[in-house]
Amino acid sequence: MVEKIKNIALVGGTHGNEMTGVYLIKKFKSYPHLIERSSLDIKTFLANSKAIEAKQRYIETDLNRCFGKKNLEDGNTVLYEQILAKNIARKIKDNNTDLIVDLHTTTSQMGLTIIICDGHPFHLQLGSYLTSINPKIKILKYSSAQEDLLLRSITKLGFAVEVGAVAQGVLDAGLFQETEQLVYSILDALDKHNQGDNFDSYKSLILYQVIERIDYPRDGKEIRAMVHPNLQFKDYQPLNPGDPLFLTFEGKTISYEGDFTVYPVFINEAAYYEKGIAMCFTEKQEIVIKNN
Amino acid sequence: MVEKIKNIALVGGTHGNEMTGVYLIKKFKSYPHLIERSSLDIKTFLANSKAIEAKQRYIETDLNRCFGKKNLEDGNTVLYEQILAKNIARKIKDNNTDLIVDLHTTTSQMGLTIIICDGHPFHLQLGSYLTSINPKIKILKYSSAQEDLLLRSITKLGFAVEVGAVAQGVLDAGLFQETEQLVYSILDALDKHNQGDNFDSYKSLILYQVIERIDYPRDGKEIRAMVHPNLQFKDYQPLNPGDPLFLTFEGKTISYEGDFTVYPVFINEAAYYEKGIAMCFTEKQEIVIKNN
Repeated sequence: MVEKIKNIALVGGTHGNEMTGVYLIKKFKSYPHLIERSSLDIKTFLANSKAIEAKQRYIETDLNRCFGKKNLEDGNTVLYEQILAKNIARKIKDNNTDLIVDLHTTTSQMGLTIIICDGHPFHLQLGSYLTSINPKIKILKYSSAQEDLLLRSITKLGFAVEVGAVAQGVLDAGLFQETEQLVYSILDALDKHNQGDNFDSYKSLILYQVIERIDYPRDGKEIRAMVHPNLQFKDYQPLNPGDPLFLTFEGKTISYEGDFTVYPVFINEAAYYEKGIAMCFTEKQEIVIKNN
Repeated sequence: MVEKIKNIALVGGTHGNEMTGVYLIKKFKSYPHLIERSSLDIKTFLANSKAIEAKQRYIETDLNRCFGKKNLEDGNTVLYEQILAKNIARKIKDNNTDLIVDLHTTTSQMGLTIIICDGHPFHLQLGSYLTSINPKIKILKYSSAQEDLLLRSITKLGFAVEVGAVAQGVLDAGLFQETEQLVYSILDALDKHNQGDNFDSYKSLILYQVIERIDYPRDGKEIRAMVHPNLQFKDYQPLNPGDPLFLTFEGKTISYEGDFTVYPVFINEAAYYEKGIAMCFTEKQEIVIKNN
């Protein structure tokens, strides 16, 4: 298992229109005792204040795609978020941060999702523990080529909390409270870990692994279909071969033509239209955790 | 009753991140026969192309607050949308437009709403007809001081179609199809009117009239509470004295302290945080329509 995890960065507002994280961080700054844990040193910060002020995802480019080595080492970057990323990365390092928890929201129905990168044993153990105390929590492994560009990946053990469905620019009080409880559960778990609890009694885990990103059908840049109504808000539910996938503007259904059942996530995420992602297909895996 | 209504402007993208209207107008431009009606001359257009491209509500200021006489006659306006509003108003007048239908979406659960200004008898008759063919349609009378600043108010008989809940930047296929059907129903009704049908058999109407706009509790500019979870997505449902209204970030419920039951709409609309509106209270009225 990993050593003690002392220095935590709790981050909101990496995307300026994802309000849950922004207002949770503001709450924790006002009431720091809520996140005090004896073995942890927790720093809270808002990543992109200018985008938060503008209530936009970003000002010039997506901050959460600016943390690749190439950008961080490039002396000639000019975009606002490229420069901001360097400042954040420096701060994270100066604080000897062991672990970043980056708070996001999505317009898709992803409930309370924890997104990990590479299936690190510590994440699996933590995921097994968290899903056992709240079955609504889902663990998503998203090891795309872009992973090394994300804020959370500055630290090896960083992960994201992705909560939805909630519209951009909106605070949903119910989801706010659920996200707050999830943060406390995460901090409690990290504290337990530092006290020597290895969560050995948690032996298994349902893991959703992203295997493919699906774009909208397009004519050139222009989309020519929408997510099918049967699929809207059906994140983590099985999509079988032949099931409806898209609906063209003319009303024609386009079906899923794969050979096996997948479990889509990020279905119809507002910010992903520009990224060419209508949804991500995942594979549902039952992981047995071997201790020691 | 009003005279014949010949020249119709069907408008989408007045707000660039409200995708349903944008893609409906694109569809109608591709398949103009869908909106051909024998007695109508229908022009379709996208109001704010630059905001649509940017997938933002607006570039510099809310276009749908730029149609007041003051702005339209001011020679010194400098903001992008202020200038755009003048061009649109000129086009609407040059086309001798009788009626604007402005297509909007909202993050609140307003279903299929038609927003009228002043309770014009023609609107009441039209509303009575439309709600009888689809009981999901609601008629909202919103005669605020700002009404004369709206795009639809360039024409006396203009109205808005407000559809939700859908996140900004998202196409919800189900709502897209319902909005499309509503547009056809409206055009059919206008065509019937021109053929001499006065909808005399439709005698009553449930009308929701905006009576008050409610802001979030704030400390200075900063909100200090969210819409209460019990109220989220409960547009058009009764809110009784003592019912929960807001939830502070500390978890304290703030109740509705009015003397009578109201029916809130625009509950937690993303774009209204900056306008100081958490919701609009309405009064539910049963209108009896007197013919002749």
